[in-house]
Amino acid sequence: MLNVGVIGTGMIGQDHIRRMTRVLAGVRVAAVADVDASLAARIADRAGARAAPDGEQVIADPQVDAVLVCSWGPTHEQYVLAAIAAGKPVFCEKPLATTQQACLRVVDAEVRHGARLVQVGYMRRYDAAYRALKQVVDAGDIGAPLMMHCAHRNPRVPAFYEPQSAITDTAVHEIDMVRWMFDDEIVAARVLVPRRSRNGGDLQDPLLLLLETGGGVLVDVEISVNVRYGYDIRGEILGENGTAALAERGLVTVRRSGALAAPVPVDWRERFLAAYDVELQEWIDALAADGAPAGPSAWDGYAAAVVSDAGVAALRTGERVAVRMAERPRLYHRPAPQARPVNDSREVPA
Amino acid sequence: MLNVGVIGTGMIGQDHIRRMTRVLAGVRVAAVADVDASLAARIADRAGARAAPDGEQVIADPQVDAVLVCSWGPTHEQYVLAAIAAGKPVFCEKPLATTQQACLRVVDAEVRHGARLVQVGYMRRYDAAYRALKQVVDAGDIGAPLMMHCAHRNPRVPAFYEPQSAITDTAVHEIDMVRWMFDDEIVAARVLVPRRSRNGGDLQDPLLLLLETGGGVLVDVEISVNVRYGYDIRGEILGENGTAALAERGLVTVRRSGALAAPVPVDWRERFLAAYDVELQEWIDALAADGAPAGPSAWDGYAAAVVSDAGVAALRTGERVAVRMAERPRLYHRPAPQARPVNDSREVPA
Amino acid sequence: MLNVGVIGTGMIGQDHIRRMTRVLAGVRVAAVADVDASLAARIADRAGARAAPDGEQVIADPQVDAVLVCSWGPTHEQYVLAAIAAGKPVFCEKPLATTQQACLRVVDAEVRHGARLVQVGYMRRYDAAYRALKQVVDAGDIGAPLMMHCAHRNPRVPAFYEPQSAITDTAVHEIDMVRWMFDDEIVAARVLVPRRSRNGGDLQDPLLLLLETGGGVLVDVEISVNVRYGYDIRGEILGENGTAALAERGLVTVRRSGALAAPVPVDWRERFLAAYDVELQEWIDALAADGAPAGPSAWDGYAAAVVSDAGVAALRTGERVAVRMAERPRLYHRPAPQARPVNDSREVPA
Amino acid sequence: MLNVGVIGTGMIGQDHIRRMTRVLAGVRVAAVADVDASLAARIADRAGARAAPDGEQVIADPQVDAVLVCSWGPTHEQYVLAAIAAGKPVFCEKPLATTQQACLRVVDAEVRHGARLVQVGYMRRYDAAYRALKQVVDAGDIGAPLMMHCAHRNPRVPAFYEPQSAITDTAVHEIDMVRWMFDDEIVAARVLVPRRSRNGGDLQDPLLLLLETGGGVLVDVEISVNVRYGYDIRGEILGENGTAALAERGLVTVRRSGALAAPVPVDWRERFLAAYDVELQEWIDALAADGAPAGPSAWDGYAAAVVSDAGVAALRTGERVAVRMAERPRLYHRPAPQARPVNDSREVPA
Repeated sequence: MLNVGVIGTGMIGQDHIRRMTRVLAGVRVAAVADVDASLAARIADRAGARAAPDGEQVIADPQVDAVLVCSWGPTHEQYVLAAIAAGKPVFCEKPLATTQQACLRVVDAEVRHGARLVQVGYMRRYDAAYRALKQVVDAGDIGAPLMMHCAHRNPRVPAFYEPQSAITDTAVHEIDMVRWMFDDEIVAARVLVPRRSRNGGDLQDPLLLLLETGGGVLVDVEISVNVRYGYDIRGEILGENGTAALAERGLVTVRRSGALAAPVPVDWRERFLAAYDVELQEWIDALAADGAPAGPSAWDGYAAAVVSDAGVAALRTGERVAVRMAERPRLYHRPAPQARPVNDSREVPA
Repeated sequence: MLNVGVIGTGMIGQDHIRRMTRVLAGVRVAAVADVDASLAARIADRAGARAAPDGEQVIADPQVDAVLVCSWGPTHEQYVLAAIAAGKPVFCEKPLATTQQACLRVVDAEVRHGARLVQVGYMRRYDAAYRALKQVVDAGDIGAPLMMHCAHRNPRVPAFYEPQSAITDTAVHEIDMVRWMFDDEIVAARVLVPRRSRNGGDLQDPLLLLLETGGGVLVDVEISVNVRYGYDIRGEILGENGTAALAERGLVTVRRSGALAAPVPVDWRERFLAAYDVELQEWIDALAADGAPAGPSAWDGYAAAVVSDAGVAALRTGERVAVRMAERPRLYHRPAPQARPVNDSREVPA
Repeated sequence: MLNVGVIGTGMIGQDHIRRMTRVLAGVRVAAVADVDASLAARIADRAGARAAPDGEQVIADPQVDAVLVCSWGPTHEQYVLAAIAAGKPVFCEKPLATTQQACLRVVDAEVRHGARLVQVGYMRRYDAAYRALKQVVDAGDIGAPLMMHCAHRNPRVPAFYEPQSAITDTAVHEIDMVRWMFDDEIVAARVLVPRRSRNGGDLQDPLLLLLETGGGVLVDVEISVNVRYGYDIRGEILGENGTAALAERGLVTVRRSGALAAPVPVDWRERFLAAYDVELQEWIDALAADGAPAGPSAWDGYAAAVVSDAGVAALRTGERVAVRMAERPRLYHRPAPQARPVNDSREVPA
Repeated sequence: MLNVGVIGTGMIGQDHIRRMTRVLAGVRVAAVADVDASLAARIADRAGARAAPDGEQVIADPQVDAVLVCSWGPTHEQYVLAAIAAGKPVFCEKPLATTQQACLRVVDAEVRHGARLVQVGYMRRYDAAYRALKQVVDAGDIGAPLMMHCAHRNPRVPAFYEPQSAITDTAVHEIDMVRWMFDDEIVAARVLVPRRSRNGGDLQDPLLLLLETGGGVLVDVEISVNVRYGYDIRGEILGENGTAALAERGLVTVRRSGALAAPVPVDWRERFLAAYDVELQEWIDALAADGAPAGPSAWDGYAAAVVSDAGVAALRTGERVAVRMAERPRLYHRPAPQARPVNDSREVPA
């Protein structure tokens, strides 16, 4: 039974607490903290956990085996560094930190620690459809990959959404997914813009983000955050001998009023709910089995930040922007985790 | 934390133990028994549970809150009756018992107990696609239902599969699903037969089972158990103003070698793995919340047996066979459980 | 250039005249007759054809090479017999005649004539999707056929639609299609009925028609004539090793307002427009090449009538009704026409 | 009856002669010429046409009402100019001429003539799926268009295929389609390249062509000419409130060997056969009705050449290349032709 301390009890923090309390196996919420102490107290009470006065004390709590950071982005660095200092595994919701320099400080701290403790919350790697797509690619069914076409569509965005958010908050999921899908770094970014959707007001929406991988795969990502009709994630990979694509995912098809229709997810929660469950269960299982996480690393968090910065510069300048990364430490040279079978019929634990 | 005792550690028993140990929340395997005592001991050891000498002692174990019966079908009745006698909730894999008379004895025992303790393992009610289908029907989106077209296809069947198994083992899932989908009893069955598939040797395969509900819905079920190409479950409901169907469920589509293709599940495990998870989690949650199960009841187990018998008689005689059922006890008059939302975003427990 | 005389200028007659005038190659409308002489005159004038006082004079016209019978059903027999007597090829819209006895008289007349002159307007054999389906079956891709599941859905029916029309007017298309698809006769029919759709008032709608072929293929046909949502034709064949189905046929898919949707045809004209074009062009081409038609024969027209009668009896009695047919004359023993490739890249005429 | 003279009896010329002889209404092949006089003689003989010694004499033939130019590209300009000089309507297969300057000479000649005579063979405007897509856009169903994602995939290309052919021969279809779809000019082009497919040897394949329209629609076109798996044309338009896409077009779906599959067209002939039929029938009908063509104009041929040149420059330089066009003459200011209904139920001619 893994005892987890949760820092931050906003929407995502509460959702993870619900998940650990009511959905997942082998985990218990031991301690909870939030800047809103009374909220933390209420949440802790419901979850049968201790309310701590601050994140540092969650980390320090001897009953806490591992830490989940769900607080405001600008605080991520300090809590992740503190967890590393305490030698405790820490799962940090994206972003790892708010600047690439801060991300690199986390990488450096973990490298000095000498073993992986950090996992970053890029959950697409846990989505059954993306995993099946990666299996097709890795199996060589379509030949060597050449291009990938993606779309990331949101029905609407909140008022605080800023121009660069299309890259740093939205497309960052595709940035991590592409690195994972092709086991490769992204070396350049470019952004092209059509005319603006009137649904987005002054916001430059949509965008076309173009990414190049070190191995020469060209990826185009349509980012549209005001499409109104639903939440829609698309991806098709062109290989030398075929293509593989995320399938439409409706559970039912309905014929009425002149049309054959399938529902589109209303939001990201509906689309990726199961991926969050799998992500956290595998984190728990990996800590139980190996004492260390196997998912997206601090390096992945750093790389996403660097590529995002290049994307933002590309958006600002209209130019192709080369990605300049630090040298990848040996700690992160481990073979990329293989895609697991979509339906995992694990045996009873031996 | 629910402490569950498991009787029977064959394939399905082991799978449920894996599920309770590694997938689900709020549950612990407390005790295990099997006719093969050394197998039970090994399984118990891995699961951190006690190995009991027999099922009765699992039921009697004061550390056991609820019982899971996964043993050989002919033993189901005795264990379920014993659990009722002990006043413990019991989840029994299908069938509830091997004859309708035996099922009725369980119903009678539970009625005498005065409250629901029994749940039967009809897991299609927990499949996300069937639930979405029921939501469409219940919402009135296609008007009042008139007909349903189903297919239940297996790639192949084992050597011990007998002629009536097509009804009692295979179509019984559709029998339960139809009763649940339309909140209604089945009143008659008929079986038509085409020429036999050579893949099935002497077996009469495929069959067309025709069911009539009390409300006049006509259901046809193609049962084909040697289709070779995969495991395929289909269902389309015709309403007065439209239709609703289970959608194709491939995660990816691949274009290669002249075709656009999506994989078909290889077997029932792949198709219904998630439904088993949901089924058992909801059972656990219902016991925690209400102390009683909310899923398929002993009455549902009895009704499935009676309709199956009618189907077998229809297969043997070629005639329409009316279903004759006992009177439904008041205990089972509770309103049918509503379909839950497909994506359940439950709040943190209050 | 084939000179065609058209008898009957109602909706279907006018549509065929438009087709021969503006769509098809190698044909000219030479003469036209209708019970409404002024209508015939107007139509003839527009088409550059002669208006004849009656059908007999169309047939007798020395400028008429071949006859198209589009008049009221009860008049079909007399015009087809007159065309045979005149030794002229005749295309007769369905039905060939209004009773099986009358159909047999046409068969007998043609047999006495000694060569095929008659083609009956069963146009599904010319639909690209049905042809592709037959190609899959004939190629053995799914193994020997065992069952077929069909649905024939109309949005609504006119006031003069009678109870037996569901068989004689609607399902008769499936009756001919099944005989053609499996190159076999239908030997028995049965009709099951669910509760009635309120959209159909007193009409028994929908129906489930069950057909057995001589070779043991079992076919179920849902006939629903008030589904409101559109015109929908479905068909899936179960073979020993796989299945083949008519695909959804939307040209575009639209994502808006929470759904991914494709249009359903509004009526049979939209769904089968191209099949009518192909049907008549191939009739014209066959007459030009061989002087005789190659499509559905008088025997096919007779067989459809006999099976329809069995279906009507089955609807009335609720029983399985065996089909009793006359002996098939040698004239109709020719090998069944092979399905042509879906995309026919014919060479320039040699 | 339109009398057509055909210049050039290679593959496409022969195919159009077959079409006019055996498929379409209201047309006759009157005269034929080819550089290979004996081929022209054989083809003319089969088609019941006169063999002319050269293209000029086809044009001059008083029995020829309209001219079809299917000869080698470098000869197009001279024949189209000769037809204009003769005042005869001329349908010219693409390209209109081999340089934008030559295209402009044709435009100038037609402008001096004072009325449209020229139609260029861009047949996608006649494809039922593209027309349905345009209808959705024009109807405003998805809101104002913002982006379009296209793919143009060939299984393989012949040995004479050159680097710029990917733009001038392949993507030129998308170039014309985009101008037509959005009733707008293309103002800039850019080409990005991933690593090369080994199926294409030294050829830079695939490419990503990016087009900007005057109104600000951004179009990306994947051009892959060695994908092996089939011929695949894709298109999805993002509007402010939804998307519309070309649907998959398989006629049947087959389940066998673990997969649900639909065939992909083997080549462009299979995919666009019907579009060629519609294209030429509408040309014939327009000449019959109005004496002038209504399809892609000389201006469209010129614009395609100018945009192609910009695309080739973009491929060579890696830069965004602005499209510089001559001023559009008043002759081509007519409103763009509206998309016709997909299923055109035209009445009998009045």
